[in-house]
Amino acid sequence: MKVINLDHISAKPLLPEVKEVMIEAIEKDYHNPSSQHKSGEEATAALQKAREAMAALLNCKTPKEIVFTSGGTESVNHAIKGVALANEDKGKHIITSNIEHNAVIRSLRRLRSSGFTVTSLPVDSSGRVKPKDVAEAITKDTILVSIMHSNNETGTTQPIEEIGKITRERKVIFHSDAVDSVGVVPMDVQHLGVDLLSFASNTLYGPAGVGGLFIRRGTRIFPLLDGGVQENNKRAGAENLVGIIGTGKAAELALRDMDKRLIHLKTLKDQILSELPHAIDEYIINTHAEHSLPNLVSISIKYIEGESVMLMLDDENIAVSTRSACATGSLRASHVLLSLGLSHADAQGTLVISFGVDNSKEDIVTFLNALKNVVTTLRDISPLYQKESQL
Amino acid sequence: MKVINLDHISAKPLLPEVKEVMIEAIEKDYHNPSSQHKSGEEATAALQKAREAMAALLNCKTPKEIVFTSGGTESVNHAIKGVALANEDKGKHIITSNIEHNAVIRSLRRLRSSGFTVTSLPVDSSGRVKPKDVAEAITKDTILVSIMHSNNETGTTQPIEEIGKITRERKVIFHSDAVDSVGVVPMDVQHLGVDLLSFASNTLYGPAGVGGLFIRRGTRIFPLLDGGVQENNKRAGAENLVGIIGTGKAAELALRDMDKRLIHLKTLKDQILSELPHAIDEYIINTHAEHSLPNLVSISIKYIEGESVMLMLDDENIAVSTRSACATGSLRASHVLLSLGLSHADAQGTLVISFGVDNSKEDIVTFLNALKNVVTTLRDISPLYQKESQL
Repeated sequence: MKVINLDHISAKPLLPEVKEVMIEAIEKDYHNPSSQHKSGEEATAALQKAREAMAALLNCKTPKEIVFTSGGTESVNHAIKGVALANEDKGKHIITSNIEHNAVIRSLRRLRSSGFTVTSLPVDSSGRVKPKDVAEAITKDTILVSIMHSNNETGTTQPIEEIGKITRERKVIFHSDAVDSVGVVPMDVQHLGVDLLSFASNTLYGPAGVGGLFIRRGTRIFPLLDGGVQENNKRAGAENLVGIIGTGKAAELALRDMDKRLIHLKTLKDQILSELPHAIDEYIINTHAEHSLPNLVSISIKYIEGESVMLMLDDENIAVSTRSACATGSLRASHVLLSLGLSHADAQGTLVISFGVDNSKEDIVTFLNALKNVVTTLRDISPLYQKESQL
Repeated sequence: MKVINLDHISAKPLLPEVKEVMIEAIEKDYHNPSSQHKSGEEATAALQKAREAMAALLNCKTPKEIVFTSGGTESVNHAIKGVALANEDKGKHIITSNIEHNAVIRSLRRLRSSGFTVTSLPVDSSGRVKPKDVAEAITKDTILVSIMHSNNETGTTQPIEEIGKITRERKVIFHSDAVDSVGVVPMDVQHLGVDLLSFASNTLYGPAGVGGLFIRRGTRIFPLLDGGVQENNKRAGAENLVGIIGTGKAAELALRDMDKRLIHLKTLKDQILSELPHAIDEYIINTHAEHSLPNLVSISIKYIEGESVMLMLDDENIAVSTRSACATGSLRASHVLLSLGLSHADAQGTLVISFGVDNSKEDIVTFLNALKNVVTTLRDISPLYQKESQL
């Protein structure tokens, strides 16, 4: 069964070169990088190589600023809880936005029950935080600002550099959840001015369940996983070496192929946006026209449910998503879309189309044709649509 | 370079069948188990299969009691911090032992700085905790007892069932760090009476950087990783599906081959213990004669340093360890060995020989011959040895 994957935001395929090095690592049976004999040293060298590739992709000052984790969620938990606990003597106030991923929201909720206070900033109707709001929210108790780089339901990116200038000036630690950006768009931690940056390997076409955290040297943070001295004493636990080796290769390729990928993604995105009006009508585009990822288009289709569209497209072997895979099972409308000012009904009609290097222009044509049929079918049976058309 | 791996406690090779399913999973490019389309459902089924295999190995009442993690360290952190935070309204006292792994020690140290108190129980000269000591240490503020199943530096196992009876009667949550036991010896969570059990996939000849936590239904515990609703809402984050699939296969094989493996390991252990007196003299055996793992022998060789022995054996392509790989780099003598009553000098002379299904009797012969030469060479240049021999 060949499935057209337009749900890259939930899962990207591994690149052939990434598969190759992961399989090699499995065959090779690396020993433990913490062991001091020769077998351990080979493992250490492989780990170091991956760390250097990741540091190069983000333009870190030293590979030591990269801590490998079990994925974006662990990285975010580490950043937020680690900074909170290490700095609570200075203050217990944290600033975030209303459109963060659940990993951020729930980590902060956990801290709230330990006496931390959180200011959650609104976004404007285009889905962006105002840097001025961040500046105004900072108090003498503020120890951390955590604002995502890009949103996984809209693709809209945030003014991270401008916020970074503010946090540097005010000497507040700045974390950005860049799980959906690193590997997709050029990311330079010096330029962005962040102290902490969370990323996930799968966004680079590396394996799921692997990721990392950039920790700028000198940032006061505790480990989330206490134990051994791995990862320069910042993250205990035997390393997922197979996954980390795959991540290193994926980082190397992302850096090498970034320009080529951006052109390809932009072509597909333009194709969707320009052809969509010929396929369907009455929809809202949730993705920012200028400040957004090149690999994602979010639309809210009026009078029908995104979930029904997703399931009917699935029957045609086309995978799309309606919202963050991590929130699957929740019946509530997305907090992200409601934050943009969408009505509950419109939010429920949302479809997230996310694509990658493995998609072609033909995939988009197939998708748009299928979407046209699905929307027509669903609207034909939609009481809401009948009512509105009679007005 | 063929290396004889007698450092299985730091890293075990993947079983051929485990490699096979991991490589298949890489080739297959599973989608995200949280996605609701068909591609997501295939991933969900693979995840469920692994969970069932792991639950069968531990005799869980339901696969839902298994939470997959990024390894033993995360499992231990989850168990200890998760129980502490979820139960601090009941009390803030925790009981542990003096010979725990760093993941336990440092998780507890972290909690101490948040106002928890910890009673750390001594072990007798054979390396075992007295259940009576646990019973006596329990107060009305005690919310958790955390005692390891087996120690990774001595191989000695603890009276977990007897402690389990006490904690059940006193209604205190009981966690056991069984990272070096699960997959090596039969483990039945009903029989052991634990509420939480940490394990690592590599101990089952599965991949490093994968593990899990048994959480008995009804146990009051918070997640360590907050975010999405993965792992029955107990552990957020996209799953390391390649690693988890490997773990499932490893669990299936451990259950199938347990008896055969035990016989093989016992043969090698007996060979080491019976031949050792013919190879070297003046050493202490740190491993309990009866209550210990079948795959590990810990000895302290007098007048010389374990690290020198390890490095010289490395030159002969034989890998052994001197202590926990997680503590590598520390110059201090092992807290575990000092707890047994060993002197600093004797503790420094410790060698941990750990073996597995891939070792043969010939490997042991080669090792013992090499050890004999190495010890002779080192003692010839040891001032301590010269001094003692002149007495």
